[in-house]
Amino acid sequence: MKITSVEAIPLAVPYRRPFAFASGRVTAADHVLVRLTTDDGLVGVGEAPPRPYTYGETAASVVATVRDLFAPVLVGADPFARERIRADLNRTVANNAAKGAVDTALWDLVGQACGQPVHVLLGHAADEVRVAHMIGLGTPKEMVADAAEMRDEHGVEAFKVKVGRELGVDLAAVRALRAELGDHVELYADANRGWDADTAVIAARRLADHGVTMLEEPNPADDVLGRRRIVAASPIPVVGDESTITLGGVARSLLDGDSQSISVKVARTGFTESAKIVGLCEGLGVTTMIGNQIDGMVNTVASAALGCGLAALARHPVEVTNFLLMTDDVLAEPPVITDGRLAARQVPGLGATIDPDKLAHYRIDH
Amino acid sequence: MKITSVEAIPLAVPYRRPFAFASGRVTAADHVLVRLTTDDGLVGVGEAPPRPYTYGETAASVVATVRDLFAPVLVGADPFARERIRADLNRTVANNAAKGAVDTALWDLVGQACGQPVHVLLGHAADEVRVAHMIGLGTPKEMVADAAEMRDEHGVEAFKVKVGRELGVDLAAVRALRAELGDHVELYADANRGWDADTAVIAARRLADHGVTMLEEPNPADDVLGRRRIVAASPIPVVGDESTITLGGVARSLLDGDSQSISVKVARTGFTESAKIVGLCEGLGVTTMIGNQIDGMVNTVASAALGCGLAALARHPVEVTNFLLMTDDVLAEPPVITDGRLAARQVPGLGATIDPDKLAHYRIDH
Repeated sequence: MKITSVEAIPLAVPYRRPFAFASGRVTAADHVLVRLTTDDGLVGVGEAPPRPYTYGETAASVVATVRDLFAPVLVGADPFARERIRADLNRTVANNAAKGAVDTALWDLVGQACGQPVHVLLGHAADEVRVAHMIGLGTPKEMVADAAEMRDEHGVEAFKVKVGRELGVDLAAVRALRAELGDHVELYADANRGWDADTAVIAARRLADHGVTMLEEPNPADDVLGRRRIVAASPIPVVGDESTITLGGVARSLLDGDSQSISVKVARTGFTESAKIVGLCEGLGVTTMIGNQIDGMVNTVASAALGCGLAALARHPVEVTNFLLMTDDVLAEPPVITDGRLAARQVPGLGATIDPDKLAHYRIDH
Repeated sequence: MKITSVEAIPLAVPYRRPFAFASGRVTAADHVLVRLTTDDGLVGVGEAPPRPYTYGETAASVVATVRDLFAPVLVGADPFARERIRADLNRTVANNAAKGAVDTALWDLVGQACGQPVHVLLGHAADEVRVAHMIGLGTPKEMVADAAEMRDEHGVEAFKVKVGRELGVDLAAVRALRAELGDHVELYADANRGWDADTAVIAARRLADHGVTMLEEPNPADDVLGRRRIVAASPIPVVGDESTITLGGVARSLLDGDSQSISVKVARTGFTESAKIVGLCEGLGVTTMIGNQIDGMVNTVASAALGCGLAALARHPVEVTNFLLMTDDVLAEPPVITDGRLAARQVPGLGATIDPDKLAHYRIDH
């Protein structure tokens, strides 16, 4: 089996409402759909949500990188040869979302060629994952309404609360959420590097007092000693996300004491490097969990496959609700979250069939 | 697909000559063949070479563990569900070779079910590996003859030299090997914990002077400060093998400064945990290479698949010649080493078809 064509298709799908966090704000999904076709007629897809504030990528840069640098490597390659392809793609530094989308599409092809769902190929740890919902910045009232909707409509019982603003505002939101949701619900926090170290040290303790279980990216990891001071002082684990975006970066962050748990995203490390990160973290006794790059439906399906594939990732609720912000997307069959759970698709590959009419409608390159 | 039967068959295959090393000596292959059959009629195999001086296992203990503890977990399980099976098997501590054989057989089934060779499923880094030959303890003349035979008959150009005796004797052997083989050949050394730290510190420097590239298990890793002293003083990397037999054990050894490179063996960590160890070591920037548990033909084929599957393991020559010590084995088609290389089998699964007549002849439970 050989790859015969590589497409990188920029999309624009409106959001129902803007989504805000300490490092940015999104109002429409300007994702890039990566589509690989083989000589057997198989089609594999991946999704690159560009995040300039995290990886320096834009939709245009993803399209250009996939078209100009990755396609020449991919055309003619065997999709199974992920280890060789990874080395070839890594000759280009950065471009994390572009690489993640390519690897996702490769696994989609591999699963189809094997007649097996991707989560089964990965190790079949589970058939569904518990779901975590990410609550964007807003007034306490708006944030509570968001959480309550997700609980009432989808049965979600784990929430990542965006923080990183003036601490009093964040704590008011957390208090309101705890009051509304009760003690049995997991709340964890993500500051997206919004605080300085002094604030974060106080915040970690105050958040822990409200039963918040983890604190993601409290400050810029490049504020080196500040970050380590937070890690040393925090009563709850400090989670690496945008500071831990490659296998080697995860190792360095953990060894240096910059983080204690790791957020893994299919949108940047696909399946191949994500599995290596999980191997690293399992060996080091470090918790891993699946985060969300404000993903669309393709990465939502892929995240469920990754979580159901590897036992270490099936343990914590998986962040897979962001696609609900979008008014629509290009999948023929949207993901469905019920009773706080999302099931892996029991079809060969990812089961991320694209609706051709929707693709024609939302692509912006035609 | 479900596993319907689990067999653990003890074998006895004579060696052409005894094989000696600092921690033991073997005169016949008392391996255990693990055979899993599914409701689809697929048959997967793995091989457990028991090594009491490394894992505390014997052929009888492997048979009993597989039959009494592992079979109840395996029967009815989906062979793809390696992550769940691994957690179930790990409720039993130790029994490393028994676990390795089961995981090998699971991947053999998975490959067959997918219609893909195991090395392709793993990531298809290569189609063949360079071969390293392990030279057992003997007189310098005997050791040179062994190496020369392997060079002349199989084109091998990488040799692991067993050391760990009186240093002068070992150095004489290394000198003789270097003189016979030339400077272009890789020599690396394995002391199997035969030295004390003082001797090993001197040995590492002397071996390095002869162009020896690595030193495996110079002393018992439980001589904790002694081992760290060797690591600190050695001009060549200290390789963990029998002190680094699990994923967590590898992490601890590396972080504690007990080893700097890691020997990975399909005979103890199969494919699933071996891939995690490779992820850990890739992340940490640590070299991994495939070692040999004085394996028979099944594990030889499996080692080639592992080496061809993962790029990090395809880089260094793979130790796969020990099966040549055996007068025979139960494979229908023995591995062939030509031009110093061993190819992965290009058939679904491992391609380790068992010869029923040979199995009947060498099994000792009938």
